[in-house]
Amino acid sequence: MSDQSGGLYGVVLAGGTGTRLWPLSRAGHPKFLHPLTGTDASLLQATVQRLDLLAPLDRIFVVTGVAHAAAVSRQLDAIPDTNVLVEPSPRDSCAAIALAAAVIARRDPQAIMGSFASDHLISDKERFTEVIRKAMVGAQQGLLMTLGITPTRPETGYGYLQCGGEIGDGPVLGVEEFKEKPSYDVAESYVKSGNYLWNAGMFVWRVDAFLSELSRQQPQLAAGVSRIAAAWDSPEREEVLGEVWPTLPRISVDYAVMEGAATVGRVGTVPGDFGWNDVGDFHTLGEVLAADPSGNVVVGHALEPEAKSGVLLRDTEGLVVVPTPGRLVAAMGVRDLIIVDTPDAVLVCPRERAQEVKHLVDELKELGEHDYV
Amino acid sequence: MSDQSGGLYGVVLAGGTGTRLWPLSRAGHPKFLHPLTGTDASLLQATVQRLDLLAPLDRIFVVTGVAHAAAVSRQLDAIPDTNVLVEPSPRDSCAAIALAAAVIARRDPQAIMGSFASDHLISDKERFTEVIRKAMVGAQQGLLMTLGITPTRPETGYGYLQCGGEIGDGPVLGVEEFKEKPSYDVAESYVKSGNYLWNAGMFVWRVDAFLSELSRQQPQLAAGVSRIAAAWDSPEREEVLGEVWPTLPRISVDYAVMEGAATVGRVGTVPGDFGWNDVGDFHTLGEVLAADPSGNVVVGHALEPEAKSGVLLRDTEGLVVVPTPGRLVAAMGVRDLIIVDTPDAVLVCPRERAQEVKHLVDELKELGEHDYV
Repeated sequence: MSDQSGGLYGVVLAGGTGTRLWPLSRAGHPKFLHPLTGTDASLLQATVQRLDLLAPLDRIFVVTGVAHAAAVSRQLDAIPDTNVLVEPSPRDSCAAIALAAAVIARRDPQAIMGSFASDHLISDKERFTEVIRKAMVGAQQGLLMTLGITPTRPETGYGYLQCGGEIGDGPVLGVEEFKEKPSYDVAESYVKSGNYLWNAGMFVWRVDAFLSELSRQQPQLAAGVSRIAAAWDSPEREEVLGEVWPTLPRISVDYAVMEGAATVGRVGTVPGDFGWNDVGDFHTLGEVLAADPSGNVVVGHALEPEAKSGVLLRDTEGLVVVPTPGRLVAAMGVRDLIIVDTPDAVLVCPRERAQEVKHLVDELKELGEHDYV
Repeated sequence: MSDQSGGLYGVVLAGGTGTRLWPLSRAGHPKFLHPLTGTDASLLQATVQRLDLLAPLDRIFVVTGVAHAAAVSRQLDAIPDTNVLVEPSPRDSCAAIALAAAVIARRDPQAIMGSFASDHLISDKERFTEVIRKAMVGAQQGLLMTLGITPTRPETGYGYLQCGGEIGDGPVLGVEEFKEKPSYDVAESYVKSGNYLWNAGMFVWRVDAFLSELSRQQPQLAAGVSRIAAAWDSPEREEVLGEVWPTLPRISVDYAVMEGAATVGRVGTVPGDFGWNDVGDFHTLGEVLAADPSGNVVVGHALEPEAKSGVLLRDTEGLVVVPTPGRLVAAMGVRDLIIVDTPDAVLVCPRERAQEVKHLVDELKELGEHDYV
């Protein structure tokens, strides 16, 4: 048992761009750094704040890439320097999570760790905290716990968890299979059946249980991460990271570990219902933030009054408007549009086409307009 | 007769803001300074270029206010310094035109002068030149000539000229009455009758004929302008201007001179049909500039390629887009919208509500947002 049993180590993955949130989210200033939370906190900061009833700040780790290490460190200025884990290059989620697990295991071999995306919104923090505590009970028993969201619609943009009956000693359901993003009809049948949850990509486990499954299923990755962890507190850390990291396979933790663990009965879930939203696009963002009486959502408005970030709406309905400091967005006589203004680009499109914004990013890349991507 | 008979003195009035073209047109950078012409010329520059078959550059005068004297002088860098007439304060069109007439009369007492707005577009320069030459024939006979545009729709935004039969020795129609902006029904009856032309606010006359009518109808204004003109080439110019100009009545030339001259049979017109457009709002601008195959008009696009002024349109129709250098406008899945981007503000509204843009400017003024006005 851990010397601090009952506590959680929180791992926040600060990676990914979020091209459907272009032009706000850019390769150089990705989604998680932006205040899309309805407060002045960035998604990254809100993710850490959400863990405050579960983990003290010295147990919060963040894994990020070289491009955003500085911005991430500054936004999370209350966590220790040593808890900022910088990947030399992107190697997908399994390597990132395994690195954090191995580093935490050096401090506390049976620590319970929770892994969280840095770019989701959760509206009910108390309920979230309760669900994590329940998941920790399953984790304590050696299960790899994944958080499942009770689906509210036949969403085709998420993966699903196929659940079985209760397992272990708590309110934990066994996860029989991980399902990839389904077609609409399949998603509808999932939702009707009541046996499927959205896979929200949040995990809770004992680090030893995870590292053991990693060794079983991904021995090369486990060995590499183990070498890196052994050198972590030595003068050789950078040398070893530089040598080993590029050799690690690029693979998501779902494919690499969770699917295989589910088939041998080692994955559990606690159905969650805490206002989860992946903030995948501006339409979704508009559904989760507070709207004015006409249904217009102004993201981050009045956060920086001194910066003169202004919005003037006249006879508009259902807009999602993202203004930028020092500039004015004026709209009149339009409805259900997304208007996103940034220091060097502005986007206008209907909310119903929010998912297609990523195609604009593809088009800009093809045109060689890398400054805007 | 003038020693240069047959030639024209061109007077360009560079005043007014154009609030329906907000946020492009501002108090500090009004409509006429912008390249809304489909080329890289501003409306002001295009107005002067359009006169090149009629008047040499040393016979082109521009009347402007103190706020824009520098910008106007720089845009029109080929006209002599002495031809830039700077009004100490706005006194409406009669004072501006009278000043130009009086200054020109000092050089050439029987000069024929044409007065033109600086913020209109004319697509057929050759036809325009022909019409002005016909008007000059009427002017030579002492008539105050006003250019009338053959109406193409029952427009309620313009004044009308009620025409009578031919007068004088040329293809000149007498103007019986100036009509204010009519209701839709009245405008419809005007267009059907065939006796009405749009009052385009362009005038051609002998300066002595105009100054004589001015003396008859506006003796105070005529005396004031005469005092100023007498001091024009003396060291006292600024003193006299500063003393007399503020005492001149604020009145338009239509009210002050043309209406009264029409009732005594001294106004003539030549119906014109040269692609006149007053560029009153962004919808109108979109109708007069070249569109892409989907009907999208991008104003000034590709004029400043090195400035990276970009537009990315995907599945759009009938847009009027005004980009700004160094920024990108991206639109997807929208139609018949106006999107105007500027360094500090962006506007989105339907083309059919283009006229109401001025209300946004009013609202900004009420809010004290003077930086954006």
